[in-house]
Amino acid sequence: MRRRTISWHPPEASRRDAAAFSGLEYLQALLDGRVERPPAAVLVDYRIASVATGRVSYELVPEEMHYNPFATVHGGILATLLDSALTAAVISILPRGRGCSTTEIKVNYLRPVIADSGRLVCEAQVVHAGRRMAAAEGKVRDVNGRLCAMGVGSCLIFDAT
Amino acid sequence: MRRRTISWHPPEASRRDAAAFSGLEYLQALLDGRVERPPAAVLVDYRIASVATGRVSYELVPEEMHYNPFATVHGGILATLLDSALTAAVISILPRGRGCSTTEIKVNYLRPVIADSGRLVCEAQVVHAGRRMAAAEGKVRDVNGRLCAMGVGSCLIFDAT
Amino acid sequence: MRRRTISWHPPEASRRDAAAFSGLEYLQALLDGRVERPPAAVLVDYRIASVATGRVSYELVPEEMHYNPFATVHGGILATLLDSALTAAVISILPRGRGCSTTEIKVNYLRPVIADSGRLVCEAQVVHAGRRMAAAEGKVRDVNGRLCAMGVGSCLIFDAT
Amino acid sequence: MRRRTISWHPPEASRRDAAAFSGLEYLQALLDGRVERPPAAVLVDYRIASVATGRVSYELVPEEMHYNPFATVHGGILATLLDSALTAAVISILPRGRGCSTTEIKVNYLRPVIADSGRLVCEAQVVHAGRRMAAAEGKVRDVNGRLCAMGVGSCLIFDAT
Repeated sequence: MRRRTISWHPPEASRRDAAAFSGLEYLQALLDGRVERPPAAVLVDYRIASVATGRVSYELVPEEMHYNPFATVHGGILATLLDSALTAAVISILPRGRGCSTTEIKVNYLRPVIADSGRLVCEAQVVHAGRRMAAAEGKVRDVNGRLCAMGVGSCLIFDAT
Repeated sequence: MRRRTISWHPPEASRRDAAAFSGLEYLQALLDGRVERPPAAVLVDYRIASVATGRVSYELVPEEMHYNPFATVHGGILATLLDSALTAAVISILPRGRGCSTTEIKVNYLRPVIADSGRLVCEAQVVHAGRRMAAAEGKVRDVNGRLCAMGVGSCLIFDAT
Repeated sequence: MRRRTISWHPPEASRRDAAAFSGLEYLQALLDGRVERPPAAVLVDYRIASVATGRVSYELVPEEMHYNPFATVHGGILATLLDSALTAAVISILPRGRGCSTTEIKVNYLRPVIADSGRLVCEAQVVHAGRRMAAAEGKVRDVNGRLCAMGVGSCLIFDAT
Repeated sequence: MRRRTISWHPPEASRRDAAAFSGLEYLQALLDGRVERPPAAVLVDYRIASVATGRVSYELVPEEMHYNPFATVHGGILATLLDSALTAAVISILPRGRGCSTTEIKVNYLRPVIADSGRLVCEAQVVHAGRRMAAAEGKVRDVNGRLCAMGVGSCLIFDAT
């Protein structure tokens, strides 16, 4: 039996932090460790690795705990990494007081991922931002730069106040 | 701080079990607790709830640990539930010696999910199965039967031997 | 050489008609031939076959003019049929003065379509409608009821006035 | 009433040409006008504009005949352009005797297209090619370089002989 203990802060802290800043400020604070990671990030163990306006990267080190019955990383884990990165790319362009909600995501799985794939990097960027909708795309590469998965998604943008 | 300890069996057991049975037999054994859940199922805490040829359901009880920074269940967690169910629906029609690999999934997020949404049920079914490809669709409903997310995906089918 | 002449009314007529009615009234008028088909419908030669609140069907008789280089119906033609039907399903629930715009569509091609496939019917329905977004799904079947393609899509809903 | 007459060659010619060449040779011949455009290309009036291994561009001049009831270019027409380009990108890497079939496509509509948008260019490229599956992505831009739509899709690759 393998065992792992995870611990997280109540999500109210994340939510309060997310509302107190512009999107870019919030993500920068997350990167700097000045605000708490949301629970899902702790559970799945992905983290933000870089942020700029309209462009972010997230990382995940694939481990046995991410495996499906075929002993490869579950597609949903890769979808979680992509969803996080695509949404953050959109968040990065939002001023304080504007929020977004991901309405759909499409993921293509291109190569099986295993623990030996090494650290995964998901780079995502906004490809279009209108007043009410934004679209973003992202790509997941393994430690050797091989493309493992890609995703595209849409976010609805609204007043968060 | 909240804390949770998870424990899982090495995935070699899952993989060996998955190869020893027809797809339907494997899923039935998973439902009956005669084979181990894969690590990702333990981590995210979803589980199979029913299985028939071409049709399965999976469940997940949404909890705080699944939350994104907005204090709702992370879209990737719903994608994980859908991916698991869609893939299992395809697995359920495969004879021993045939395997499948999910090549893509599209998820529409229709309603925010929180812990108060109650137990989520994802029903999935195969909508088409050819010699080399199959497609499946699934819907996630909350405890009140409200549709929260839906997904469609494709699997490549191959000889697993 | 094969030849075909198409003729259509200026789209201003369609646009004016679409704005003058509730969604359901417009689609019913289209079905009854009381308003003009939009140019794309004439070009590709699809037409509405039934309409109810939240549910429509569209038809297309596959012909050689729809073929790709492999002598099967071009995927884009099936996407056009699905896009038309999904969007109309959403239109059917909109009151006068509300409009919608399809923001994304995902199509799975499940079976090649040729002229011998016979009349295609695409049934589509709204699966979720919120204040700002709606989602719909549709399935294309051939004259023998075999599933040829399926699609899911999202529409942004807004004030058209 | 507006009127347009289209004429095309029987698709048997396209199919024979497509089978007689490597993918790249076929697309180059299409670009050079040495083989006939498939019927759907004539109907919708898109055409190949450039080709290299793994990368193609297609063009379409939006016209009134492409309009939906809202007097903008029908999403299915943009999907047809994207589907053509994505599939051609995959075709461009196939040796003689190998064929492909597009199994799914996802299109995001980012900006309405009208006749005044001017000539649309869709650039598409293969992002992954395995033995049995390939994935491609494409972007449609208007004459001012503004992104109007994007698509990702998958192709199944097989022996065409």
